[in-house]
Amino acid sequence: MLKKVLIANRGEIAVRIIRECYDNGIQPVAVYSTADRDSLHRKLAARSVCIGGPRAEDSYLNTGNIIEAALRTGCDGIHPGFGFLSENSGFARECREAGLIFIGPSPETIDQMGNKARARELMEKAGVPTVPGSDGTVKTAEEAAAVGDRIGYPVLLKASAGGGGRGMRRADSHEEALEAFTAASREAETCFGNGEMYVEKLILSPKHIEFQILADRYGNTIHLGERNCSIQRRNQKMLEEAPAWGISREMRDEMGRAAVRAAVAAGYENAGTVEFVTDREGNFYFIEMNTRIQVEHPVTEMVTGVNLIREQLRIAAGQKLSLSQEDVEIRGHAIECRITAEKPEAGFTPDPGKVRFLHFPDGNGVRVDSALYSGCGISPFYDPMIAKIIVRGDTRLEAVRKMRRALAETIIGGVSSTLPVQYLMMYNGAFLRGDYDTGFLEENLDQLVKMCSAVDAAGAAGAAEEVK
Amino acid sequence: MLKKVLIANRGEIAVRIIRECYDNGIQPVAVYSTADRDSLHRKLAARSVCIGGPRAEDSYLNTGNIIEAALRTGCDGIHPGFGFLSENSGFARECREAGLIFIGPSPETIDQMGNKARARELMEKAGVPTVPGSDGTVKTAEEAAAVGDRIGYPVLLKASAGGGGRGMRRADSHEEALEAFTAASREAETCFGNGEMYVEKLILSPKHIEFQILADRYGNTIHLGERNCSIQRRNQKMLEEAPAWGISREMRDEMGRAAVRAAVAAGYENAGTVEFVTDREGNFYFIEMNTRIQVEHPVTEMVTGVNLIREQLRIAAGQKLSLSQEDVEIRGHAIECRITAEKPEAGFTPDPGKVRFLHFPDGNGVRVDSALYSGCGISPFYDPMIAKIIVRGDTRLEAVRKMRRALAETIIGGVSSTLPVQYLMMYNGAFLRGDYDTGFLEENLDQLVKMCSAVDAAGAAGAAEEVK
Repeated sequence: MLKKVLIANRGEIAVRIIRECYDNGIQPVAVYSTADRDSLHRKLAARSVCIGGPRAEDSYLNTGNIIEAALRTGCDGIHPGFGFLSENSGFARECREAGLIFIGPSPETIDQMGNKARARELMEKAGVPTVPGSDGTVKTAEEAAAVGDRIGYPVLLKASAGGGGRGMRRADSHEEALEAFTAASREAETCFGNGEMYVEKLILSPKHIEFQILADRYGNTIHLGERNCSIQRRNQKMLEEAPAWGISREMRDEMGRAAVRAAVAAGYENAGTVEFVTDREGNFYFIEMNTRIQVEHPVTEMVTGVNLIREQLRIAAGQKLSLSQEDVEIRGHAIECRITAEKPEAGFTPDPGKVRFLHFPDGNGVRVDSALYSGCGISPFYDPMIAKIIVRGDTRLEAVRKMRRALAETIIGGVSSTLPVQYLMMYNGAFLRGDYDTGFLEENLDQLVKMCSAVDAAGAAGAAEEVK
Repeated sequence: MLKKVLIANRGEIAVRIIRECYDNGIQPVAVYSTADRDSLHRKLAARSVCIGGPRAEDSYLNTGNIIEAALRTGCDGIHPGFGFLSENSGFARECREAGLIFIGPSPETIDQMGNKARARELMEKAGVPTVPGSDGTVKTAEEAAAVGDRIGYPVLLKASAGGGGRGMRRADSHEEALEAFTAASREAETCFGNGEMYVEKLILSPKHIEFQILADRYGNTIHLGERNCSIQRRNQKMLEEAPAWGISREMRDEMGRAAVRAAVAAGYENAGTVEFVTDREGNFYFIEMNTRIQVEHPVTEMVTGVNLIREQLRIAAGQKLSLSQEDVEIRGHAIECRITAEKPEAGFTPDPGKVRFLHFPDGNGVRVDSALYSGCGISPFYDPMIAKIIVRGDTRLEAVRKMRRALAETIIGGVSSTLPVQYLMMYNGAFLRGDYDTGFLEENLDQLVKMCSAVDAAGAAGAAEEVK
């Protein structure tokens, strides 16, 4: 096993990985920016190193300082978490060159899957369904529109190097395709230094279904079932669940096999996620592979009993997977809500500040992954995550009820949060039926936000006011 | 299922049951004494009723007020939790007469198992091994000493109506037996209004191993494996784990079958615990059956995945067990530490007061059952429980490591606690080998307490001082 691991991240995922290091007898080393001196991830690690100023490029993206910290503290591995350097093949290469184990796939795999057009070609060869679209990249607006004319509108124009919705445009006609290419390509050039575009058919009423993958270096590649992550606001997930509701067993099995084929085709090692969209007719299409651990990994942990961060550490140390495909059993149902410090009634603008009071739920089937404590600050420099609240029930209904009471127990004083929106979601008809797609929030968000101001959701149990 | 349940208890077990009610669509009604106005169990329940003054006899033991509250709020069931009225057959009868479902076994079963001598006879008939001793009760000191002479010293004299170590005396000789009878019988008369005594062989180096039982009214009785609860100080458990280490699979299976026979012989319905002692030679002996949920039930929940409080609610509503003996699978290892507000260095005197700051651990495989929040008070009127910290690992070593880091993360400001003792226990050789009996604390407590003052155990991760 690894002996000492530097966690090149912050917030709740750094806390998650630090805890896992301790639980496996590995010494964790935290890194922190000057804005994170009082952060929990720093406090929990027995050793921590300041790697620069508040801006991410000065600290959490500062590969030189991070690698120097790892070498200076005698680490043998680096865990990148998610975001920041987690899908940066250059960083993975620097680690390798410095003699450090990068806890994730090889830089070659990251490169291959990071380039959307190349990933798509690879998937087609491996027999993994992809969304109808251009054959590779398109160079001009006319070329993009020609593809649209061939596969039918609406279409999406996407940047090869894109992600998180940037460098992406919808076009409903030949004319719109011409305009969209120019705008999106320019944005991609600015954001990613690469203006390459490709065209895809736009799937209507799509569900975002992703499969968790684990692969070791001995040819063992398995999936751990799927997650439905369709509840998104501007491509940011607010809630995830496992398993996905309303897809047939046959379709699920077929998708699982395709996800494994995708990982094998990519020569994948470590934990990763194969993302699909599904349509109303029961078709599914590969969209991308995330070559890192996901924010929503706990829902998979809750229903499979598999510890994904531990598997990552084991695989990186050259160990075999601790289980085979046959050992994977989905037990019950899990839901995760990402509670962030944002003002729902003000267009979800971030609301950083001091957390005056904090009380989280707990008990049978409830887990909270958070880096906050009563009295700490939420920094304006980073994403305003408060906590991931995760529940597991034997049935989906039980999980929904557990989430209601877990959210009702939660008290966050001093900052606004998305909690009331997620609480009200637990009473939404379409959500309760499990019958929702990525349009869910667009259709329901205004109403949910309006209800928030009328209902003191967090105080459902009468707790909030009295305890404060 | 039940519709509305009154929880006739307080503290963390009331919180546990209230949460379970919500998770199953049952409306919880809390009761509270005037000392518990600001307690979490009151705040979490949508409805709560004040049932009297701070003294237990005025409130949590006040059967009239409790039943009136249940009727007035339209409850159909009452959950007694543990302690207080949980093993009071009179209360169970009053519930029945008032048309309320008592969530536990019948008053007849409570009576039968509450009388130690009668329980012993019943077990002997059912072929469950009992500790060699008197045939029923002994009436005089001479009779007690005669039994001692026959079965050999050392012996224990125990009150038929006893429990928690009261009305119990050790005797190493004929003379001591004479003296012990007089003293213990008098104490039993005072404490329980019943001076009846019986004599048992004292088992040397005993382990306290108990089996969790579930039984419905349709003749289904199963066990959910065992817990080792040998780490006790004055008969109060400080730490429990499941499964028990260092007993063979054959012995475990045999004990499990005996535990089921015991429950069947008692005509048992609902959740209960069959307690055994084991000796060095691999013998086991029935000591008593607890006719209620136990403090340490979460360790069984963590390794079996069975929700015991939900099973209690289902059984009481007349439903069948949700699983059979073949479905019970022990996965991994769980440990629970009972953190109480006591001063280890002052003989564990209670240290009630205001909890200035509170920070609990969380994450994969960690659960905290507690009724506290930052700023709340711990009342001098009741037991000074702070939290049960429970962890599960795939192996015992992983569970131990998880407990170390969970305790290291915990910060309790404003009151003293037993946490440093339990933290240091996680590094004790005998504990780590899993090779300990009920003498463990007697042998190790002084040393552990001495180390506490030298080591800031809770601040192992450097967290305590900085976060406060």
